[in-house]
Amino acid sequence: MKAVRVALGQVNPTVGDLIGNAGLVQRFSLKAREANADLVVFPEMVLTGYPPEDLLLEPTFLVATEKTLQTLARQLPKDIAVVLGAPEKKGDRLYNTAVVIHHHRVQHRFRKWFLPNYGVFDEHRYFTPGTTPGVFRWKGIAIGLTVCEDVWKPQGPAPVAVKKGADLLVNLSASPYHAGKNDTRTHVLKQRVRECHVPFLYCNTVGGQDDLVYDGGSRVMDDRGHVLAQSPLFQEDLLVCDVPLKSTTPPVAPAVLPLTREDEILSALTLGTRDYVIKNGFKKIFIGLSGGIDSALTACIAVDALGKENVVGVTLPSRFNARETQQDAARLAKNLGIAFHSVPIEEIVRAFNKTLRPLFKGLSADVTEENLQSRVRGTLLMALANKHGGLVLTTGNKSEMSMGYFTLYGDSAGGFSVIKDIPKTLVYDLSRRVNTRAGFSLIPKDTLTRPPTAELRPNQKDQDTLPPYNVLDTIIQSYVEENKSFKEIVAEGLPSSLVQKTMNTMDAMEHKRRQAPLGIKITPRAFGRDRRMPITNRFRSDQQKKAPPPLKKGGQGGFALALVFAFSLTFPYLVSFPRV
Amino acid sequence: MKAVRVALGQVNPTVGDLIGNAGLVQRFSLKAREANADLVVFPEMVLTGYPPEDLLLEPTFLVATEKTLQTLARQLPKDIAVVLGAPEKKGDRLYNTAVVIHHHRVQHRFRKWFLPNYGVFDEHRYFTPGTTPGVFRWKGIAIGLTVCEDVWKPQGPAPVAVKKGADLLVNLSASPYHAGKNDTRTHVLKQRVRECHVPFLYCNTVGGQDDLVYDGGSRVMDDRGHVLAQSPLFQEDLLVCDVPLKSTTPPVAPAVLPLTREDEILSALTLGTRDYVIKNGFKKIFIGLSGGIDSALTACIAVDALGKENVVGVTLPSRFNARETQQDAARLAKNLGIAFHSVPIEEIVRAFNKTLRPLFKGLSADVTEENLQSRVRGTLLMALANKHGGLVLTTGNKSEMSMGYFTLYGDSAGGFSVIKDIPKTLVYDLSRRVNTRAGFSLIPKDTLTRPPTAELRPNQKDQDTLPPYNVLDTIIQSYVEENKSFKEIVAEGLPSSLVQKTMNTMDAMEHKRRQAPLGIKITPRAFGRDRRMPITNRFRSDQQKKAPPPLKKGGQGGFALALVFAFSLTFPYLVSFPRV
Repeated sequence: MKAVRVALGQVNPTVGDLIGNAGLVQRFSLKAREANADLVVFPEMVLTGYPPEDLLLEPTFLVATEKTLQTLARQLPKDIAVVLGAPEKKGDRLYNTAVVIHHHRVQHRFRKWFLPNYGVFDEHRYFTPGTTPGVFRWKGIAIGLTVCEDVWKPQGPAPVAVKKGADLLVNLSASPYHAGKNDTRTHVLKQRVRECHVPFLYCNTVGGQDDLVYDGGSRVMDDRGHVLAQSPLFQEDLLVCDVPLKSTTPPVAPAVLPLTREDEILSALTLGTRDYVIKNGFKKIFIGLSGGIDSALTACIAVDALGKENVVGVTLPSRFNARETQQDAARLAKNLGIAFHSVPIEEIVRAFNKTLRPLFKGLSADVTEENLQSRVRGTLLMALANKHGGLVLTTGNKSEMSMGYFTLYGDSAGGFSVIKDIPKTLVYDLSRRVNTRAGFSLIPKDTLTRPPTAELRPNQKDQDTLPPYNVLDTIIQSYVEENKSFKEIVAEGLPSSLVQKTMNTMDAMEHKRRQAPLGIKITPRAFGRDRRMPITNRFRSDQQKKAPPPLKKGGQGGFALALVFAFSLTFPYLVSFPRV
Repeated sequence: MKAVRVALGQVNPTVGDLIGNAGLVQRFSLKAREANADLVVFPEMVLTGYPPEDLLLEPTFLVATEKTLQTLARQLPKDIAVVLGAPEKKGDRLYNTAVVIHHHRVQHRFRKWFLPNYGVFDEHRYFTPGTTPGVFRWKGIAIGLTVCEDVWKPQGPAPVAVKKGADLLVNLSASPYHAGKNDTRTHVLKQRVRECHVPFLYCNTVGGQDDLVYDGGSRVMDDRGHVLAQSPLFQEDLLVCDVPLKSTTPPVAPAVLPLTREDEILSALTLGTRDYVIKNGFKKIFIGLSGGIDSALTACIAVDALGKENVVGVTLPSRFNARETQQDAARLAKNLGIAFHSVPIEEIVRAFNKTLRPLFKGLSADVTEENLQSRVRGTLLMALANKHGGLVLTTGNKSEMSMGYFTLYGDSAGGFSVIKDIPKTLVYDLSRRVNTRAGFSLIPKDTLTRPPTAELRPNQKDQDTLPPYNVLDTIIQSYVEENKSFKEIVAEGLPSSLVQKTMNTMDAMEHKRRQAPLGIKITPRAFGRDRRMPITNRFRSDQQKKAPPPLKKGGQGGFALALVFAFSLTFPYLVSFPRV
């Protein structure tokens, strides 16, 4: 029975780093050749990194990409077929293309058919879809090409290639991670093999790019859909495997064990953080440690990602901070072995209050004073990072992001927001897992058990202002991630007035999210390019529960009504409460 | 000769305000009926406002929109045909639709063919294109429908409708403003009439929506392309006009005079600011007045937009501020008749320096101390706005945005960035025009003549750090707006090393722009959703000038090279300089 030796280069390219990415392809191709592979496959758009966004509109970028591709072709080993992804400019059209190189030349190009334009994807902004199947012959075998989305739907270029005689199918992907995505991927790929009845090579990219993490999960499947070999998640890998063109006996199960949900998510957070920091040329990280669980988990991830010698913890106590939370911050820093500084904010806050007194005359204390403390802390952390050449990581979670429960220019001041897409209840799960892996209370026990507090006024508790976190996180999942309606969420058994208030607050807080730093997408729908909402927006998602009121004939009835409506619901708008 | 009386409702809807927008349609339709019009046309997606972005993915929103449409239909005068834009959900597809209502019912729907998915547009994310022409008969006339982009290209639904017998064409638009856009629009519409040889009704929306301003420019053209009547730019208008189906004598020239470039842009800035503030439920505005030209122009626009009684000027002097600039700030406030406060920052800065001293030991002063002053000012302005329930307007211009010449969480702290898309040289032109219109030096003379300075250290001038503004603004126009390459820009006669340094800095500052507030799009390509660049991005646009260096065979050659390259160019990354 005929067989072919294949290799998959699950590499970590950097957007825009044409030379570096070409270098990756070259190194992995040489290794594949040394392992006697006939064919090596790389991810979608590996030469540019994915997504290059509007770099694809710069003619200079496209010219440089094509030049790099031609240079690379001349320098690759000649007797292995290298399949890699790159943009292809042809006249005034641009394609998302799989390129085949051997004997120092580009021999074949296949243009992606199905261009995703939903969620985080904008491929119609850049690309024209291809219309012809891609089959090339190499060492007596016909190989059919597909790019990412092409295999996520039936009746794409895969079955067409097989009809044209393909003995083997290849897919080049840049498929971003969300929790559980790899299971979905397995399901989809099996469907394609069942449709096509030939062996299947799936090569996905790995690494972090701004808010996206690619988890890899590259694999080789036989013509019945059995996995013959697969790469580990979240790391670079060269996978080499002999593939029989017709399966004989059932193959041995692959050696890679699946990760638990918590371990998978922690890996994604670590990789996303490491790549954002390193790829942007940073080393040193500053984190404000409050003694709370969000900053504790963020610090643990930062140490995992960058090493304890590159992480600095800073506690910024005021008179509202309990001795216990301060001690927990210090204990965490000690447990992690990171540098730790205490920078009290009282004297600065006093100077602000004194300066503002004439302008605040006769007005009682409110969220203004809470925001102020948070902004003093943000300014101090930024000063440390500016002076020492570092990056501030922010520590807000998805529950806070959704409710606007943070201070703009305060606790949201920083370059990267590690757990931005992690709801609070999941923050607890991940923290417990961190401690289990450490084998001791790396994150102090009290941090895990104390009721969450912002400590911006006496006896403040998150739950005085927010719904209970388990309820809030249920609403976030239903509304933000699953796009459920007010009615559907109430039908799940949650109190109608609470759901209404929560959804309205979520809707009204878009302006705050828009100025917050990027963070890593972990759920099926993260805030940001995954969920694009207008800031100016008078629709509130609970409106469905009542019929639209009758319009008054003539006059300004409808309009005036709308105004009243808007004011009552957007009342808290842009009054940047820290914790309201 | 047969004629028809038509009306165009150039209205200002608010995104998501279904009831308010329906009320607008109702009021304008009644007025049109009172004026004996047979037909009244409203803009694209007038019922939802445009763009509703991901609201279009919420089933609740689409259901509420359709319900509002049905309610509206029952309440409109029955014997006038009302044409308006709304989304149309059909099965699992969504269309961008023109709806025709008369006799209390929806009588006809036409689905937009050409869906823009470039620049600020994402219509492929939401809509399926229509494929059939839209012609409806009303009072013996056949009327052909098109929506916005449908008439920006030849061979769309317009000529097809005419082939099917249309006597008259209608276009519903939500076409955003940039400087000079109305001339382009005139050119395009004349081309369409020349293609179709029937009278043409063009109704565009007006008003501000986040970063977009719609300028209106609705008009009625006869079958030879002569303008019979047109609405003024930048304001709501009901345009009523008798249209002969065949032209006889050349019509009288329309009464609307074109605006000068400066007046047009000032109108756009005023409308965009007013609508952002009002539609989000605000009234009071706070602006930091430095005595410089950017804050002076911003304050003049704010007063025009919202009235002097709603604008508060605040000067925040340090020991680096000259007496002259302080006086200019006070003089401007007096000239505008706005409230004015002086809030010295020295004592707060001293408290910060004292607190930070132990951590800054042995390190000399640098941009950290400059950023600090800017952040103290941002925090004070936000405290005032939080306490008094107002919105802070930021005052940075496009030249500063492009070079990252601002402090994150400092001078960029605020809700809306009025002149964000105005290059510095244009800031001067607009300011001079403001003074001419006022008939005196509303903006003090010295503000216009003094060399720009951030006053964050002794004797600081913008031009110590930035290229001369006329050169910088030329590079911005060529690179950002016209997408020219490094080579092309140098070929225009600018020094190669300056262009290189400037473009590299622009590329490296994406992370700062991403956390800055929204501002009004004025140029053909603004930063933001109009220009989507990755933050993590090792490509530098001057790379084209050299061929890619040869890749080393084996080893980490290529990759290491890329790293060196990246570090040297991204060195300033995220060290948030105020003015570097």
